[in-house]
Amino acid sequence: MIVVHHLNNSRSQRILWLLEELGVDYEIKPYKRDATTNLAPKTLKLIHPLGKSPVITDNDITVAESGAIIEYLIETYGQHLKPGEHSQARREYTYWLHFAEGSLMPPMVAKLVFDKVKTKAKPFFVKMLAEKIADKVMEGYYAPITAANMSFIETHLQNNKWFAGDELSGADFQMSFPLEAVVARGAGAQLPAISEYVQRIHQLDSYKRALAKGGDYDYA
Amino acid sequence: MIVVHHLNNSRSQRILWLLEELGVDYEIKPYKRDATTNLAPKTLKLIHPLGKSPVITDNDITVAESGAIIEYLIETYGQHLKPGEHSQARREYTYWLHFAEGSLMPPMVAKLVFDKVKTKAKPFFVKMLAEKIADKVMEGYYAPITAANMSFIETHLQNNKWFAGDELSGADFQMSFPLEAVVARGAGAQLPAISEYVQRIHQLDSYKRALAKGGDYDYA
Repeated sequence: MIVVHHLNNSRSQRILWLLEELGVDYEIKPYKRDATTNLAPKTLKLIHPLGKSPVITDNDITVAESGAIIEYLIETYGQHLKPGEHSQARREYTYWLHFAEGSLMPPMVAKLVFDKVKTKAKPFFVKMLAEKIADKVMEGYYAPITAANMSFIETHLQNNKWFAGDELSGADFQMSFPLEAVVARGAGAQLPAISEYVQRIHQLDSYKRALAKGGDYDYA
Repeated sequence: MIVVHHLNNSRSQRILWLLEELGVDYEIKPYKRDATTNLAPKTLKLIHPLGKSPVITDNDITVAESGAIIEYLIETYGQHLKPGEHSQARREYTYWLHFAEGSLMPPMVAKLVFDKVKTKAKPFFVKMLAEKIADKVMEGYYAPITAANMSFIETHLQNNKWFAGDELSGADFQMSFPLEAVVARGAGAQLPAISEYVQRIHQLDSYKRALAKGGDYDYA
């Protein structure tokens, strides 16, 4: 039996969606973020040394890292979600699987970290300076990367219904979480194709079932 | 003919090494980092919309994102660098391919960004505060992630010669760059297995040929 070690409001929601789409039996072991740090609780380290979610166990096999979990589940339970070898769709599949966590998420996570710096800094003059420093780092480095990524994705979704080829594939599960976060933070108005794409996945029955089972989730 | 759009001192060095190991003909198109920003030059946008290195062209096929390039080259030119399906080695292969850029690099890049904040802040009292803020963000968020990642990799390399199974695989090319950077920054003394691993790859003939062809590189 597959067990998904599932952290609320996290990357692991997409793994639930994938399992629903594959129609494979699974069990959810829920974890709650630490109320102070917002990080995953230490108990996750019992499953995998890095103590992060998502991580799945499939009997005696443990798989961590979103992209690797998606690849494992598709290779084991649903090859139809992976385009055929040596096709353009297959190259896009591999590309987006790596892009989502390798290029898209890091500057988005940095923004969250800096927003926290700005909120938490005290007293007043320290706060002002902290805001200035945080804004400078975002403007000078992370924000332009995110802007370029978003415009690149927006163009792709203006011309394509799904990320890799004409059918839903593993790439869509991997890309869903960052795009849901972008739309939930309010950027959807400037990115209509991304916004429509997120609505499209939210209308799928498999997505709705995963959402009902996963517990609280702020991005759908 | 394969063309590697190669930025000096960057992730693309590992692609040169892979091509040497595969024994595939290729051409290097060199790019220099902008002297002020240290970013890739704008000319890279002519090859791929995100304008980052590495990116390769193989006649009319363009592939970006390190992990996707490694997967493409191995599937097209050297299946022996990919462990067989449904094996533990194959799962490790996929894991490390995603882990390197999805989990390991982002906090390492954040450290570089913060080191720059600390160096550049002026005048004196702003610099002091900037250092304090930068240190707090590193200590509170990014540094513990890197420490956990390093200890996890160190343990893996105490027990394994290569990242996925008993033979060199695509996972080693993907993991080489961040580990070279760690050792070059002086952390090797505390991480003997990582340090030995980096020495091991540096002794390979394919690595030496790639280094000779790639131009200046600070991490070997």
